[in-house]
Amino acid sequence: MPISTRLTELLGLQHPILLAPMDLIADARLAGAVSRAGGLGLIGGGYGDADWLARELDAAGDARVGVGFITWSMARKPGLLELALERRPPAVMLSFGEVRPHADRIKQAGAKLVCQVQTLEQAREALEAGAEVLVAQGAEAGGHGVSRGTFALVPAVVDLARGAVPVVAAGGVADGRGLAAALMLGADGVLVGSRFYATQEAAGAQAAKERMVAASGDQTIRGILFDIARRNVWPAPYTGRVLRNAFSERWRGREAELLQHQEAEAARYAAARAAGDFDTAGVIAGEAVDLIGDIPPAAEVVERIAREAEALIAGASNRHRVGRP
Amino acid sequence: MPISTRLTELLGLQHPILLAPMDLIADARLAGAVSRAGGLGLIGGGYGDADWLARELDAAGDARVGVGFITWSMARKPGLLELALERRPPAVMLSFGEVRPHADRIKQAGAKLVCQVQTLEQAREALEAGAEVLVAQGAEAGGHGVSRGTFALVPAVVDLARGAVPVVAAGGVADGRGLAAALMLGADGVLVGSRFYATQEAAGAQAAKERMVAASGDQTIRGILFDIARRNVWPAPYTGRVLRNAFSERWRGREAELLQHQEAEAARYAAARAAGDFDTAGVIAGEAVDLIGDIPPAAEVVERIAREAEALIAGASNRHRVGRP
Repeated sequence: MPISTRLTELLGLQHPILLAPMDLIADARLAGAVSRAGGLGLIGGGYGDADWLARELDAAGDARVGVGFITWSMARKPGLLELALERRPPAVMLSFGEVRPHADRIKQAGAKLVCQVQTLEQAREALEAGAEVLVAQGAEAGGHGVSRGTFALVPAVVDLARGAVPVVAAGGVADGRGLAAALMLGADGVLVGSRFYATQEAAGAQAAKERMVAASGDQTIRGILFDIARRNVWPAPYTGRVLRNAFSERWRGREAELLQHQEAEAARYAAARAAGDFDTAGVIAGEAVDLIGDIPPAAEVVERIAREAEALIAGASNRHRVGRP
Repeated sequence: MPISTRLTELLGLQHPILLAPMDLIADARLAGAVSRAGGLGLIGGGYGDADWLARELDAAGDARVGVGFITWSMARKPGLLELALERRPPAVMLSFGEVRPHADRIKQAGAKLVCQVQTLEQAREALEAGAEVLVAQGAEAGGHGVSRGTFALVPAVVDLARGAVPVVAAGGVADGRGLAAALMLGADGVLVGSRFYATQEAAGAQAAKERMVAASGDQTIRGILFDIARRNVWPAPYTGRVLRNAFSERWRGREAELLQHQEAEAARYAAARAAGDFDTAGVIAGEAVDLIGDIPPAAEVVERIAREAEALIAGASNRHRVGRP
């Protein structure tokens, strides 16, 4: 029997599982696969390449997918949000920036306003700006984030929301244990990134997916090295989590020096990205890579997470309330 | 009906709740209160003041309490471990250092060897060294730790242990939601610090406890500022989490400069600690302070966590498997 929560009801889902709108990785193919499997796929609008977004929205066809943006970047390109809203997505997710200027427009277009937050203070602002779903993202997550951990952030955001909106746990979720734990913390679902990156449909390099399967969460780092190398350092307090590699080990703790060599290193880095050389190019991944051991179809990931969580929830009272002396 | 797990069976507990052996804070009074309430109190052996430890072990009387050490510090004072083992504690917890040199002695004395780890690599080493319980501590925790978050570290350690030993979740746990979530992640219990700091029995200043109640998890930081001020910088990769205050805001990001002024600042800092001036002295606390709203007796904390988790576990299948369309 599927897990039903306020999130599944609000968004009309079979499973309380959202695809993290990973920039370029979460394209129409991956988002469509997650939605067709009963979750909600969110296309990664990322920094806002209008041509890419239009193409992917077209490619999604009749799959019911939402769109997620990097808010501070999207805000610099006003036409971009309209491009998404024209397709009548069921949800638009805003992360990393001010929600208020966009909230009314998103709701007027009939999309649910999903706001990802990394601190309690951001959660408060998002609620005040009219968020209809809060995604509480811990620093375990791959890619950009802040510093608070998922485990204590989620219940704090749940308490702040006081039942007004569903809360979704993000950062460190890769299996049914994570979904079941998120529900216990008071969340109504999960948002999953890295686990969906390592699927057949994800628009990432096979070599990157294989590194993710092989890596331990011990081997990820959060920082700005790769943002420097991409000439794309974010506003504070945002940093990014990636797998460690030869590049990060070379420059770790030497950000200032890397900035001094940024021109040459950025060129070298861009070439490495183009060539799929992940000893230099970063693989964006979260600490949950320990829990990732294969590269299945995305639908199988949705099914696994849902079934495992259902079994844990159903069996919990048998396993843990046996009353043995 | 109480939650029974492999941890409660192994350690003979009523509730799968361990008191974090917080240096100086977790004395005989607090540890005894937690044990009498059905959890396991661990006296905070900390840096190893033999007189303090002997006094507290005596004061614990017939309360069934364990002892926790900062391993790298304890290892410099060989008599200290014996002092603890003479009292036949049910468990000795080692954190932050090499387990192997002490493992046999602890087990020979009849104490269960509980090892706190902060990375998967440390968990592997602790298992190889003979750990009988693994505590997987996420960076949300107050005090010293490393960088991995609780949410993804716990299931990874559970997978590594393959059922050989029970795993305990630490870092970010302050209520029954945390215990229930930890069980879903595959853990057999929780270790709780900050929530027990803010109890009547904890050997901390009332003003520190009140700051903890008032603070948000957003207002904690992990770093070495306070260790510099205490002339007690730990070996890498350990850093400490505390509440932000005027001192941390003044020196944040200026560690090298603080080191240059260490002599004067350390004197100023010591005076502030002695005077209970927490605008300068650090209050060691984790991100779970959002979930801490009062200063009750420790037994009430044990009861609350246990009852809330029991209710969540018992009700989970009703709440989340309603099968609504």
